[in-house]
Amino acid sequence: MKQHLHLITLGVKEMDRSRTFYTDILGWTPSTASNAGVAFFKAGGVVLSLFPRNALAEDASIESEGSGFSGMSLAYNTRSEHEVDEIIGDLRSKGVTILKIPQKAFWGGYHAYFADPDGNPWEVAFNPFFLFDNAGNLDLE
Amino acid sequence: MKQHLHLITLGVKEMDRSRTFYTDILGWTPSTASNAGVAFFKAGGVVLSLFPRNALAEDASIESEGSGFSGMSLAYNTRSEHEVDEIIGDLRSKGVTILKIPQKAFWGGYHAYFADPDGNPWEVAFNPFFLFDNAGNLDLE
Repeated sequence: MKQHLHLITLGVKEMDRSRTFYTDILGWTPSTASNAGVAFFKAGGVVLSLFPRNALAEDASIESEGSGFSGMSLAYNTRSEHEVDEIIGDLRSKGVTILKIPQKAFWGGYHAYFADPDGNPWEVAFNPFFLFDNAGNLDLE
Repeated sequence: MKQHLHLITLGVKEMDRSRTFYTDILGWTPSTASNAGVAFFKAGGVVLSLFPRNALAEDASIESEGSGFSGMSLAYNTRSEHEVDEIIGDLRSKGVTILKIPQKAFWGGYHAYFADPDGNPWEVAFNPFFLFDNAGNLDLE
C-alpha cells in the first residue's frame, strides 16, 4: 500500500442539504461521476465525496450509531492571513456556523474554523511554514 | 475558497500507537515537519496528519466528547482487484482489523475495509470507472 490517500467520504445525514452546502455555499462543482446518491468533488489531489451516513457505515460493515466529535478535521490552506479573514467573512455572511473566529494559532500561523452541515470542522489556515507545489497542494518533504 | 482540500487531520487517542500504525504497519514515512506532538504524511495530493484527539477538538473550539462511527471513511484506490487482495492479506498478517473482506461492491468495483487504531474505516478499492492522473491521484472530471 503506497503512501497515498485518494478519497475521503463524509457520511452525511441529509444528502440534499450537504450537496447544497458544498455547491452553493462553498461554490464547488461536483464531478460528472456524481449522481442522486453520491457526490464527488475533485478537491486538488484528493476527492471529497458525500454519501448517506447510514449507507457509508453499512458499506464499511460497522455500526452507524455515533455522536459528538467525529475525531477529524479538514483543512483549506491559504496564501495569506488576509485570505483567511476574507473566506470566513464570506461564509459568515452566508449563514455558515463559524466555530472559531480568525486568530493567531499557537503554531505560528493564523486560522479559523467553520462547520459543514454535519458539524465536520473545517480549518481555514495560513501556515507560513508550509509551501505549495505547482498543483496547489501542500509541498511537504 | 477554491475547490481544494489540503489536509485531513485525524484526532487520535494515542499518538504513539497511531504513529506506529501509519509508519510500521502501512509503511508510510512522516514528513520532516512532524514532531513529537504531530505527524504529517504526504499522501499524494493531500496531507494526512495525526494529532491528539482532545487537542484537535480544543483547536476547533468544539467539545471532544464523541463515540461510535466517526461519519467518514478514507480510501486507497488500486489498479486491480488482485491488489486489493494483496494489501488486505498483508495487513491481516500484521494483525490489522479487517472490517470487510475483499468482495464485489454494488457499484461495480471490488473492495475491502480495514480499521486504523482509532477505528477509522479505510476502504481499499478497485474502481474500474475511475482513472488516475500522472501524479497517481484520481482523475475525475
